[in-house]
Amino acid sequence: MTESNWHYEPFEPTGSAIGFRITRKLDEVQSPFQKIEIFESTDWGNLMLIDGAMMLTTDDNFFYHEMIAHPVLFTHRDPRRVVIIGGGDCGTLREVLKHKGVAKATQCDIDEQVTRMAEKYFPELCESNHDPRAELLFDDGLAYVKNLPENSVDVIIVDSTDPIGPAEGLFNAEFFADCGRALKDDGLLVQQSESPIKLLGLINQMRDEMRKAGFTTFQTLPFPQPCYPTGWWSVTMARKAGGFDFREADSAAKTFDTKYYTADIHRGAASLPPFVKAALKD
Amino acid sequence: MTESNWHYEPFEPTGSAIGFRITRKLDEVQSPFQKIEIFESTDWGNLMLIDGAMMLTTDDNFFYHEMIAHPVLFTHRDPRRVVIIGGGDCGTLREVLKHKGVAKATQCDIDEQVTRMAEKYFPELCESNHDPRAELLFDDGLAYVKNLPENSVDVIIVDSTDPIGPAEGLFNAEFFADCGRALKDDGLLVQQSESPIKLLGLINQMRDEMRKAGFTTFQTLPFPQPCYPTGWWSVTMARKAGGFDFREADSAAKTFDTKYYTADIHRGAASLPPFVKAALKD
Repeated sequence: MTESNWHYEPFEPTGSAIGFRITRKLDEVQSPFQKIEIFESTDWGNLMLIDGAMMLTTDDNFFYHEMIAHPVLFTHRDPRRVVIIGGGDCGTLREVLKHKGVAKATQCDIDEQVTRMAEKYFPELCESNHDPRAELLFDDGLAYVKNLPENSVDVIIVDSTDPIGPAEGLFNAEFFADCGRALKDDGLLVQQSESPIKLLGLINQMRDEMRKAGFTTFQTLPFPQPCYPTGWWSVTMARKAGGFDFREADSAAKTFDTKYYTADIHRGAASLPPFVKAALKD
Repeated sequence: MTESNWHYEPFEPTGSAIGFRITRKLDEVQSPFQKIEIFESTDWGNLMLIDGAMMLTTDDNFFYHEMIAHPVLFTHRDPRRVVIIGGGDCGTLREVLKHKGVAKATQCDIDEQVTRMAEKYFPELCESNHDPRAELLFDDGLAYVKNLPENSVDVIIVDSTDPIGPAEGLFNAEFFADCGRALKDDGLLVQQSESPIKLLGLINQMRDEMRKAGFTTFQTLPFPQPCYPTGWWSVTMARKAGGFDFREADSAAKTFDTKYYTADIHRGAASLPPFVKAALKD
């Protein structure tokens, strides 16, 4: 029997913690941007931590990757050009490329080491990296978006770490304004938006920054995520104008497999619990 | 500033842990059945632990109490007579009594100390204890159900701790057979059924025991629950025969407030994620 012990992650902003029973550390690298650690767990496959914060586990990353990719792609009328900022583990890219209509998906993560670690310890997430429609860049996402041609992108997915550290710049109006400029008029922005139970203030703050940048309508979708604090997480979609018309028939007829996402779950998530709805500023 | 520290609860069956930042222990009692502790937390109000396991927090118990009460009551055709086994914190009773059609609701918890602690530290959960339709018994739930008149109850709610310790007998065929006998032919049984991500084997085991006792159809509903391991929990409904006809119009027209439960959330929860559906034996 392998010896095991518990790794706990206390999360100051929610006053709550998560943890996993681990058997050993498989790898560790200090990149120019952050410290990346890989652990083996007893029940959840491998774990990736960045600067001590749980990023993903083999067994539960599907919630997050499916919910950041499919709702936005089944809401946009016809998503062809997709940009992912962050997302270095490549799991979001894999979900995006399940949509046959997507002609090109660019993933721009500042830290190449995240992708190298994912290739080694989460190879299933990287299985679409050589799809001819995929472009992997290791560069500053802020600069990349700033330099995108105006009105050129259908969907921008911000798949980042928490709004402190390297990802801080991905949560403010200047970045969102650049996103708005790069997006076509009917384009959609989606961003991971933390826990919808104890971090609703943060979601409102993010919406305020998006509003300053010209986005006018928002939709926040909650979903379970055992490896993140509170076990409940969210993504927030934003549009420059107009609502969020879920292509429900297309979603129900999708030809690819998912573990969590379905048309029913999408519709259910879009109908917020009363306490969340009351707390969010429209 | 009050000093704080972290209380962690490693949960062996899921290989994962939860935790809360606490300021102090408010109370502790060793009842004839179990140890009950009350902590004050920085972000979640008060916490109740039984034999070291987190039972509820002030700020997140509404998920559980609403989801164990309202889906079953909006599925039964006309619930008038309701029995709650366990549920000593009285939160389930409060939700049940929000349904005006309920004529009598009996809560039978073996441990009076749980209710005494709830009255003191979670008074909002006990606000319906003096409703004339409420009956509070402190007795053995197994014996209580065995002695109920045949075909006398519309809904039995099993609101218990984990299937080890005092609640062990609430997860086997003998108890479920007694429930079946006490329930009318169109009666419904609902039980908390642990985490739908890492404890699906346990849900199947519970369904098997229910099947041995004559129940034939099942519906499992997942919901977020930050204070339970994995942050995702479930209830399972069972019927002797027939399906689960959600009274969606009545639910949408409900005249009482909820924080989490809505008709849309009920419908969404009833549509299981593919990986849960695949794992559960119908």
